[in-house]
Amino acid sequence: MGDHGPDRKARLDACNLAWFNRVMKTIPVDPARFLDDLTALRRIGGDSASMGVRRRAFSSEDLAARDWLAARMTAAGLAAHFDPVGNLFGLAEGRSLLLGSHTDTQPEGGWLDGALGVVAALEIARAARESGGPAISVVSFQDEEGRFGALTGSSVWAGKLDLAAADGLVASDGLSFAQARAQLGGRVGTFVDPAQFSAFLEMHIEQGPVLDQAGEAIGVVTGIVGLRQMQITIKGQQNHAGTTPMAHRRDAFSVAANIATALPDRFANIVTPQSVWTIGQIALHPGAASVVPGRATFSLQWRDIDGDRLDRMEAAIMALLADEATRSGCEITATRLRHDLSPMPMDAGLQAILAQSAEAVVPGRWRHMPSGALHDASNVAALMPVGMVFVPSIEGISHAFEEDTAAADLVAGLAVLADAAARIG
Amino acid sequence: MGDHGPDRKARLDACNLAWFNRVMKTIPVDPARFLDDLTALRRIGGDSASMGVRRRAFSSEDLAARDWLAARMTAAGLAAHFDPVGNLFGLAEGRSLLLGSHTDTQPEGGWLDGALGVVAALEIARAARESGGPAISVVSFQDEEGRFGALTGSSVWAGKLDLAAADGLVASDGLSFAQARAQLGGRVGTFVDPAQFSAFLEMHIEQGPVLDQAGEAIGVVTGIVGLRQMQITIKGQQNHAGTTPMAHRRDAFSVAANIATALPDRFANIVTPQSVWTIGQIALHPGAASVVPGRATFSLQWRDIDGDRLDRMEAAIMALLADEATRSGCEITATRLRHDLSPMPMDAGLQAILAQSAEAVVPGRWRHMPSGALHDASNVAALMPVGMVFVPSIEGISHAFEEDTAAADLVAGLAVLADAAARIG
Repeated sequence: MGDHGPDRKARLDACNLAWFNRVMKTIPVDPARFLDDLTALRRIGGDSASMGVRRRAFSSEDLAARDWLAARMTAAGLAAHFDPVGNLFGLAEGRSLLLGSHTDTQPEGGWLDGALGVVAALEIARAARESGGPAISVVSFQDEEGRFGALTGSSVWAGKLDLAAADGLVASDGLSFAQARAQLGGRVGTFVDPAQFSAFLEMHIEQGPVLDQAGEAIGVVTGIVGLRQMQITIKGQQNHAGTTPMAHRRDAFSVAANIATALPDRFANIVTPQSVWTIGQIALHPGAASVVPGRATFSLQWRDIDGDRLDRMEAAIMALLADEATRSGCEITATRLRHDLSPMPMDAGLQAILAQSAEAVVPGRWRHMPSGALHDASNVAALMPVGMVFVPSIEGISHAFEEDTAAADLVAGLAVLADAAARIG
Repeated sequence: MGDHGPDRKARLDACNLAWFNRVMKTIPVDPARFLDDLTALRRIGGDSASMGVRRRAFSSEDLAARDWLAARMTAAGLAAHFDPVGNLFGLAEGRSLLLGSHTDTQPEGGWLDGALGVVAALEIARAARESGGPAISVVSFQDEEGRFGALTGSSVWAGKLDLAAADGLVASDGLSFAQARAQLGGRVGTFVDPAQFSAFLEMHIEQGPVLDQAGEAIGVVTGIVGLRQMQITIKGQQNHAGTTPMAHRRDAFSVAANIATALPDRFANIVTPQSVWTIGQIALHPGAASVVPGRATFSLQWRDIDGDRLDRMEAAIMALLADEATRSGCEITATRLRHDLSPMPMDAGLQAILAQSAEAVVPGRWRHMPSGALHDASNVAALMPVGMVFVPSIEGISHAFEEDTAAADLVAGLAVLADAAARIG
């Protein structure tokens, strides 16, 4: 379940904080105050038996968390501002650097996920104001976790989804986005003009095992990977599983299994260790133990940071499907899904600054890496330069109550983000 | 949809019937009367747009068909007798040879399936009586197609399923076997003593493609294959499909695909061309395109005529599962289902007689072969010597409205069965 509160602070105090003092010279963040806020936010929707939280977008817990955050913003001297879709900004005066992420969670979510980036942003903006540092604003986007759509709040703000279309989105419990955002009532102001922000930085947990397994503290994100997905259908011949000799069969499942097994070889000269592909769904027809499957339908999704590589992987898939159709005598069709996503590179200048900050805070214990998961930063990149930084996820676990990150790594992330904000100024 | 009635007879008349006259010398069966009865039976529950039929066990159509058959038995001089589970016998006096099969069908069944063997039995018993030939009785077993159980009528008669247990079986529409058989009302007599029968012969369509593809007319069945089935569960690690590198995954579906793909090699030195295995069902958890499957559960069924070979196939499966568990780091468990079936050899003497008859009727156009499907003969073998003969299924199709067999092959089957009955006498 992980520890928190006093124990976390005690563990942090035991760390060597020499590096931390360097950062405090520019924006004197307070790691204890940061961890206290993170713990306070966790209590809103917090599971009683674990570190986990339940703060679905526009649930009473989510709105309570946003009201708590708005009060903390106000106390920090920022102008708290809800936009029409529930994105909550804490605005500094004049042109500013925007930091943040999201405070909504999965139905059974971890305590850090987007909350980490929002609370770190709050601490950095607050410390900057207290010390006469750079102007820094804070944001918590709404419905990043996709109760209604996916990244709904930042999609509307970035102009990728119009408000009428968003209002038509319906959650699995029947609530529409229009009904949900009506709960904001008198909180709502106008959409925030993105032109007032010089850039956007988002800190997030990695949600994968790479940093944890390497013993590293920071990932400087090179970009958010692109995603393509196909629905593949194999039409064979449904037959009696007792009376049909193997040589006469056109078994749709065995063709699907051959495709899954052959993919690594077909991809061998194309992919890098950061390319991924997944068959996560499969359905057989008629799906009975005594019937040779006449039809198999499955999803095939692949992701990479390089759009050309996504193309080459797709060509290899199509060649494999054609070969299997010839070999098996089955009809194989593939339908590309419309919600493909192009790779989204992070701003090169911001990557360079984040890399300098990482090397200053945790020398030799950081890496450049792509983000395999989607983030609000991907949408905000349409509006301004964007950078992202990851901290480790213990055992790579996220979207689960067990999600956690060592306190020293949380503070290292805070320090890197603060240092980079100071450099951007 | 196939042709029937007058067209079938016309096609038959065009055949060379020299061979048929040989058979008529011993039991002078009438192929036209046989085809007329088969067509008349088809009309009871017959689909209006195809050759198919709907005669679920104990449906009004099934009972109407049994009443029609009882009347035809009586007209042929046999004593029509329903036993308590709806098996309908047409009994000759004294000790007799029993011929038959079943007249119930799948929800959407073919017109031949079990009906062929019952109507052929009726014609042979009738012709034998008319000509002073051997004593021949007829049977149509009940619920062979498993509306309630599987081979329910012959299972109870053979003592493999007690009546109380059968009565507790419930169809998918909620009707119990006890309620269903109550519809027999005043028709019901006692169970028939099997000691009065010298042997049982069943003719059936092959329900597979072997004879049709080989251009052969008759299969002399060596035995009914045994069947074993496992439920195999692979426990891997559920992960985010974007953030988890391939090298860190324990993907339950990819392990299942490897198992399916590796099976043919593992079986290579064990199986014959008549051995079969099937993965007909698979479920992934959580079954989402963007999640690496943490669990895969699938059926693996294998059938063979040789019990030792079933053992060796099982050992090869278990070795493969152990190797895959070691290679993948996944936990793999296999549960044997309780309804395994042992191979059931047909009586060697009856096989020899059926082979002589097949060679006499269709010289060079028959083969010995196992039955990959279950039949009532498998149960009756517990009571008396049993033999089976197959006729071709066009394109191997059965349990479908499109099921059909060429008229010449139907009559060849009749002739082989009549010739064998005469030899057994």
